[in-house]
Amino acid sequence: MTVIPNLNIVPFVSVDHMMKLVLRVGIDTFLRELADVVEEDFRRWESFDKTPRIASHSKEGVIELMPTSDGTLYGFKYVNGHPKNMKEGRQTVTAFGVLSDVGNGYPLLLTEMTILTALRTAATSAVAARHLARPNSRSMAIIGNGAQSEFQARAFKAILGIDTLRLFDIDRSASEKCARNLGGQGFAIEICNSAEEAVEGADIITTVTADKQYATILTDNMVGPGIHINAVGGDCPGKTELHRDILLRSDIFVEYPPQTRIEGEIQQLPADYAVTELWQVIAGEKQGRTGERQITLFDSVGFATEDFSALRYVRSKLPGTGLYAELDLLADPDEPRDLFGMLLRCEAALA
Amino acid sequence: MTVIPNLNIVPFVSVDHMMKLVLRVGIDTFLRELADVVEEDFRRWESFDKTPRIASHSKEGVIELMPTSDGTLYGFKYVNGHPKNMKEGRQTVTAFGVLSDVGNGYPLLLTEMTILTALRTAATSAVAARHLARPNSRSMAIIGNGAQSEFQARAFKAILGIDTLRLFDIDRSASEKCARNLGGQGFAIEICNSAEEAVEGADIITTVTADKQYATILTDNMVGPGIHINAVGGDCPGKTELHRDILLRSDIFVEYPPQTRIEGEIQQLPADYAVTELWQVIAGEKQGRTGERQITLFDSVGFATEDFSALRYVRSKLPGTGLYAELDLLADPDEPRDLFGMLLRCEAALA
Repeated sequence: MTVIPNLNIVPFVSVDHMMKLVLRVGIDTFLRELADVVEEDFRRWESFDKTPRIASHSKEGVIELMPTSDGTLYGFKYVNGHPKNMKEGRQTVTAFGVLSDVGNGYPLLLTEMTILTALRTAATSAVAARHLARPNSRSMAIIGNGAQSEFQARAFKAILGIDTLRLFDIDRSASEKCARNLGGQGFAIEICNSAEEAVEGADIITTVTADKQYATILTDNMVGPGIHINAVGGDCPGKTELHRDILLRSDIFVEYPPQTRIEGEIQQLPADYAVTELWQVIAGEKQGRTGERQITLFDSVGFATEDFSALRYVRSKLPGTGLYAELDLLADPDEPRDLFGMLLRCEAALA
Repeated sequence: MTVIPNLNIVPFVSVDHMMKLVLRVGIDTFLRELADVVEEDFRRWESFDKTPRIASHSKEGVIELMPTSDGTLYGFKYVNGHPKNMKEGRQTVTAFGVLSDVGNGYPLLLTEMTILTALRTAATSAVAARHLARPNSRSMAIIGNGAQSEFQARAFKAILGIDTLRLFDIDRSASEKCARNLGGQGFAIEICNSAEEAVEGADIITTVTADKQYATILTDNMVGPGIHINAVGGDCPGKTELHRDILLRSDIFVEYPPQTRIEGEIQQLPADYAVTELWQVIAGEKQGRTGERQITLFDSVGFATEDFSALRYVRSKLPGTGLYAELDLLADPDEPRDLFGMLLRCEAALA
């Protein structure tokens, strides 16, 4: 038996440390590098253990666990979605995650993932758009200007060069907040009075609204030829954003069909409706965009491998930063079978 | 919008704090109160959302997530099982868990659960034995004297009055460690040279070995009339401890059949073999022990509701103890839609 020191300790990245890590790396660099890791993991899609997330639904929202493993590392994210939280001063979505060593089951990292999820969602959207949007895309409509909107804008700028934003939210103060937060970062920004106005002339439409209900953020007449739709907000059963007719005119790309058919826009379509898996496009097995007038739709719901990518990326950036705490999370008796003895020794030490 | 202070903070119980909490409450009191909470939750079994745990198996072991909810609280445990860990100075099983508010999805508690799992497993075994063992039981054989063995002994003493232990382990030093740890606590203890010797005259047989393989810790001839078998160690696919013939002679009680049929001793039996659910006995819907000569078997694999009970029990004991840290786990911008602005303000503060 070898005694390894500090087996009890798991590095923990708090919200404060995550913000400082992102800022130290630089928001754009962080998004670009994270996008590359997300893309790398999509490319080796078949090496992952995959399962639809395990959701516990309630009247007010959902709590989900999203595990996956590549055989060497295991990761999972805890994430909730409670649209009414905003009114109570809470986040609609909060999250944390853990990365572990498959070989011994010990956690290697515990981290906040509210901010990290916002970054990985945006990075994943940009990865999809890199393969699906017209290469000369410069302008993006963002419908829904809540917590995720600025991250989408920054990722699309850092990764695709999008520099023109057309914002719309049913609450104008949300658009104003978004425009204010993105000021001085090289965007031309227009706040629009309707979704119809926002999509005018846009190369890419990002929908990222938060209501937990069937909604029709986009109707068929609003979607012209050549558009790429990045549909992010429709991500649980009963929550969609696009009119069904748009889906029928689009080529649809998804993360993991068994999950997307439950949670994505395509819950409006028959269970056998043809969709293309994003990883197949990234791996070169299927075509992405094939023409200038094609409408492409990334029906994003967020998948466990993306969180896995985010966890392993964060872990790779931590050494030497000091931007983590050491958490006494795991019992580590000197003799592993002697858990009870550890309790007794604690008792003796206290006496 | 109401601003609630410190929404970012989640109470965290470290290993050190858990040991101090258990000792402050008292090991026996902790086990007794925890057993009562476990029993209370079994009694309201039908109010829980139940699912078999989500297991990620590898060559070396398994990592599992065990979620459940009663509609008001949501809990999950992360737990690994890696039998070879012991040789490397690590715990075979480590765990941590989270309790959350279903209404808003926010975590209320993050805690180590390696020690807590040992306590809840023992408490649950004792709850089952309270309903299934002969009421005059005083003597217990414990086969497998690893990390769980002393907890089983203490729970059976605190809850059933078991005061005579007959220990056996293929590694005698494990039995010696167990006997040493239980010294001066009111037990008569005999270390035995074989499983056959250990079960002689025992009212209850507890099997709690750790190998991840089909094993035959108990053979049919070793199990006399009237015995209660508390089979704890056989808890994943391909890992059993009892000879099949014992199962055929016993009345079998389980936690959650869909999970136990995959993981428990009854994986050796046809999928429709009749078993009784423990909660039905506790709720008075089915009979437990019906006679002096009946062989009862609690085919324990550990279920999510037991961890839920442990989490809510720990949470109830924390206030006023100071035995937790405050973890900055959740992003909490002043305006909930302004997650990106929080990052910008952090940047400004650092500049």
